Amino acid sequence: MSSNYRNFRNNVPWLILFLEAVFIVLFYFLSSDGSARQSSIDPAFQDVNHMVIFGLGFFLTFLKRYGFSSTGFNLLIIALGVQCFVLMEGLLVFLHQNEDEDSLTRITKATMSMTAVVISAGAVLGKANPVQLILMTVVEIIVFRLSRWMNTRFLKVPDGIGMMHVHLFGAYFGLAVSSRFSEPSPKSEKNASTPKSDLLSMLGTLFLWVFWPSFNSVLVVDERSKAICNTYFALAVSAVTAFVLSALTTKDGKFRMAHIHSAVLAGGVAVGYTASTIKYPWIAMILGLLAAVIAILGYYCIQRCFSPALKIHDTSGVHFTFGLPAVLGALAQVVLFVINNWSTLPNLGYAVTICIGAFCLTISAALIMGWITGFILNLKLFKTTPVSKYFDDQFYWEFPRLAVGF
Amino acid sequence: MSSNYRNFRNNVPWLILFLEAVFIVLFYFLSSDGSARQSSIDPAFQDVNHMVIFGLGFFLTFLKRYGFSSTGFNLLIIALGVQCFVLMEGLLVFLHQNEDEDSLTRITKATMSMTAVVISAGAVLGKANPVQLILMTVVEIIVFRLSRWMNTRFLKVPDGIGMMHVHLFGAYFGLAVSSRFSEPSPKSEKNASTPKSDLLSMLGTLFLWVFWPSFNSVLVVDERSKAICNTYFALAVSAVTAFVLSALTTKDGKFRMAHIHSAVLAGGVAVGYTASTIKYPWIAMILGLLAAVIAILGYYCIQRCFSPALKIHDTSGVHFTFGLPAVLGALAQVVLFVINNWSTLPNLGYAVTICIGAFCLTISAALIMGWITGFILNLKLFKTTPVSKYFDDQFYWEFPRLAVGF
Amino acid sequence: MSSNYRNFRNNVPWLILFLEAVFIVLFYFLSSDGSARQSSIDPAFQDVNHMVIFGLGFFLTFLKRYGFSSTGFNLLIIALGVQCFVLMEGLLVFLHQNEDEDSLTRITKATMSMTAVVISAGAVLGKANPVQLILMTVVEIIVFRLSRWMNTRFLKVPDGIGMMHVHLFGAYFGLAVSSRFSEPSPKSEKNASTPKSDLLSMLGTLFLWVFWPSFNSVLVVDERSKAICNTYFALAVSAVTAFVLSALTTKDGKFRMAHIHSAVLAGGVAVGYTASTIKYPWIAMILGLLAAVIAILGYYCIQRCFSPALKIHDTSGVHFTFGLPAVLGALAQVVLFVINNWSTLPNLGYAVTICIGAFCLTISAALIMGWITGFILNLKLFKTTPVSKYFDDQFYWEFPRLAVGF
Repeated sequence: MSSNYRNFRNNVPWLILFLEAVFIVLFYFLSSDGSARQSSIDPAFQDVNHMVIFGLGFFLTFLKRYGFSSTGFNLLIIALGVQCFVLMEGLLVFLHQNEDEDSLTRITKATMSMTAVVISAGAVLGKANPVQLILMTVVEIIVFRLSRWMNTRFLKVPDGIGMMHVHLFGAYFGLAVSSRFSEPSPKSEKNASTPKSDLLSMLGTLFLWVFWPSFNSVLVVDERSKAICNTYFALAVSAVTAFVLSALTTKDGKFRMAHIHSAVLAGGVAVGYTASTIKYPWIAMILGLLAAVIAILGYYCIQRCFSPALKIHDTSGVHFTFGLPAVLGALAQVVLFVINNWSTLPNLGYAVTICIGAFCLTISAALIMGWITGFILNLKLFKTTPVSKYFDDQFYWEFPRLAVGF
Repeated sequence: MSSNYRNFRNNVPWLILFLEAVFIVLFYFLSSDGSARQSSIDPAFQDVNHMVIFGLGFFLTFLKRYGFSSTGFNLLIIALGVQCFVLMEGLLVFLHQNEDEDSLTRITKATMSMTAVVISAGAVLGKANPVQLILMTVVEIIVFRLSRWMNTRFLKVPDGIGMMHVHLFGAYFGLAVSSRFSEPSPKSEKNASTPKSDLLSMLGTLFLWVFWPSFNSVLVVDERSKAICNTYFALAVSAVTAFVLSALTTKDGKFRMAHIHSAVLAGGVAVGYTASTIKYPWIAMILGLLAAVIAILGYYCIQRCFSPALKIHDTSGVHFTFGLPAVLGALAQVVLFVINNWSTLPNLGYAVTICIGAFCLTISAALIMGWITGFILNLKLFKTTPVSKYFDDQFYWEFPRLAVGF
Repeated sequence: MSSNYRNFRNNVPWLILFLEAVFIVLFYFLSSDGSARQSSIDPAFQDVNHMVIFGLGFFLTFLKRYGFSSTGFNLLIIALGVQCFVLMEGLLVFLHQNEDEDSLTRITKATMSMTAVVISAGAVLGKANPVQLILMTVVEIIVFRLSRWMNTRFLKVPDGIGMMHVHLFGAYFGLAVSSRFSEPSPKSEKNASTPKSDLLSMLGTLFLWVFWPSFNSVLVVDERSKAICNTYFALAVSAVTAFVLSALTTKDGKFRMAHIHSAVLAGGVAVGYTASTIKYPWIAMILGLLAAVIAILGYYCIQRCFSPALKIHDTSGVHFTFGLPAVLGALAQVVLFVINNWSTLPNLGYAVTICIGAFCLTISAALIMGWITGFILNLKLFKTTPVSKYFDDQFYWEFPRLAVGF
């Protein structure tokens, strides 16, 4: 099978090159003159870019023999996905479905949308080969854009809120895709971390932690400071809660790095929908606390009971790091909306239905299209990586020399 | 003793959880509507946050088996300390002792104040367990806020200058606390660095170096550019001087990484008080040079003579990295003030007395409260870490598998 | 020879200290009051600073036993070079050859110019000792400033464009210097990377990738957004192309990390000259594609045929990472200029001659002065590092203990 893959591999670069050529040609036809306008989101763009390229890249380096692929393929799929997304936007403007924006805002939104793809890639980390990742990127970024478009068009969800579905969409799309991949052998030594790779992953996690307030506030117009502060408090409380629960759920009351990695970020995910509307920091803090609780309890219950039953293997634990906190966030959005507008809004029920509708639309699109994508990716045509070569850089990268772990 | 700690450890998470719950409740009562206002320090907040969370976290990873704790506990105490500080500010506003500020400025100031705690934590790095660190955080952040309040209230020190006492306070508080901890066995193999851990620490150091101009200028209103430039020049000269003196003081004229780590930052500390008032860059440069000289000579004299006599073991060398350069900076502030206002100011003596008074107040508060805190932390109640388990991640963290150093 | 170096080494710190003292004295005489003015390039300064100090420092850590020197000496030469450059600017203002600027803009330009020196240092990485590096820094920064001055003064090249010659100048200066150094023994085990050092280098590369749009746009006044977007698209396409060509040129279609490191950045270099003038993103994308092709083909052809013939050993491959893409960028600048102004500009030939003249002036200055500098650096006076001690941290740094690779 490895030799099959090698034969196939010779076609891989041509496929990517073809895709890139198509992108350039489409850019020729679709590029508007949007770049002429000045943009106001200059430093925030840098933050988001940094967070996604660097933070998420190193966040995924926890596997002991998969550091090159984690950071390298992350860069590759983001570079491709952002181009694909910008083309989509150009097409939507061309079809008069969307108003024109300046290029920088477009790239920023593209980078934010790519978070969904990177999260999905985290679920199949070490199992999908580059071709599968690229196909998944193109399909997912298009489906996510369409799902956002439907949210905006039919349900009148504001664009800033629609973008926050990115974690929800990414996590469930990734889980659905990963359900179609063979499970790794439970005895696999490579599906593990070393202290060193965990420390590099901590490096990425801290980057994400620091830049999350920028991520949640970049599309907010009026209440940027409020969005930053609420996100910060939610993150702070989930960091504290992560340590608490990690000590409570492990033997001997020790901390486990994997818990910390996933739970410290849960608060930022959960507060995403409501960062600019929450009035008092204590609400954000409670949300952060609940998110961390869900993330760590999820680590136990889901990893142990739910996933084996459904035969889902989720390498980076995106379900409880991004999926469940995003569900909590969507729920909190509805609850807070109801509480704030209890007496004032006449058609409250309608507004709530819209909120829930957007949530259901996004999650169904993610699950259905994820399952279909997973099915296509595992066709014999794409020569899936053999299970014995899962989680192994040496299958994709030339190594300086034989190096056992690093 | 280890089993004692284990029994005790079961209560640790509940203690942190209780603290967090108290914080949330207090936030409920004390949170003003400050977040509604727009803040102007948006990108600078990001820089300071990045510097403290990421830069200081990795700056402390030089111990070969303490990387998880260095970065992890750093995040934990900052997340708790910032909340504690924001509550203090709310309380001071409630008591009409302080004017209300927007939330983002408050979080920025909280993060800056946390530098003091992280510096103190550096002095007991590897010796204090998480409970001790958290107690120290709460006490220190409160005492530092009170000392700043006294400075502003009674001595009329401007708030931007008062904040720059942060390095001074942190270093001497940490030294006083560390004087109460048992010394590690001199033969301990774990109290050492590997080339790899030193390189990670260099990563943190470079982050601190790059972001230091933002740190020194974030609270400056009128002369931001000047503060940035002066800090930059001071840092540049202390980087050069660090290499010079490292080669002069080691055998064979080789460089020592520990010297570089501490001395390249000394200039930034020393210039903190005067960054926005120094008129010509050469003054900042001389200050940077002197700071690096003091830091490296301190490394020799203090580590070898002074500390053993006083039975102080200062793991990260915070005394000469932050303490002595801050003393130099305070001195330089007085000297420069006298030179600049020699003929013009009528009550020069009074102004100088105020400067010196603020310095003495801060350092005595740090030493006295540090000693008391160290005493409390070493009560049997808090089950101090046994000396044999100093500097060891495995005492606090579950490890992927038995890993000898990393 | 090692003992010779040791004797010589005792004088090294005094030489650096003398240089630093001269700088401070000159600052005393030459410093204008420019820092009083407010600068508008505040966050961009931070980005450029971060990119050069941190990104380039870690970009060069790929050698397995040279991580301390890569990051440490990078900091040292930047700290010295920036001071030297700022003095040069002060001198030019004093001589009425240049208008006065605020200090922050000056430091930003100095940091950008230092990119040239760091690129040159990359060519002799592991071969030059600190004294040689410092001498090279001082000579190169002065020559580069003079070459920019001639460009601005006689050829009326705008300053923003003149600054973009930095990659071209750095690469060919470095190659000329490196031609005078002895070649390392081909069997040298130290001139290699480990997976770990490659991953750290990837960390630096991702930093450079993220901050490159800031680098290309920091001196642009009107069209900042456009410059950022064009650079981003060029970088994205060259990242994709790097993966494509790496798979095509290696055995088995695997990826090689060294290819990725150099080729992902090629697009940013190539688009530097034209970032703010390119009208449509697809032009930038084609430029990025060509740059990555040239970088990876250069890796083969030049490393294998050209360099051995000319006896040039280029440790970090600066020729194809920075040199050739910069040549491509200069060519693209002329071609795009001709296409855009084909019918409108009367004296098109004159304008094109100017463009080519600036290119030739820069590259000849780099080659000639580089060769002379290389000659001087290899005089017996400077006691060059013995070939057996090439690429070895232990020759310059005290190590925590004997550590074989890290």
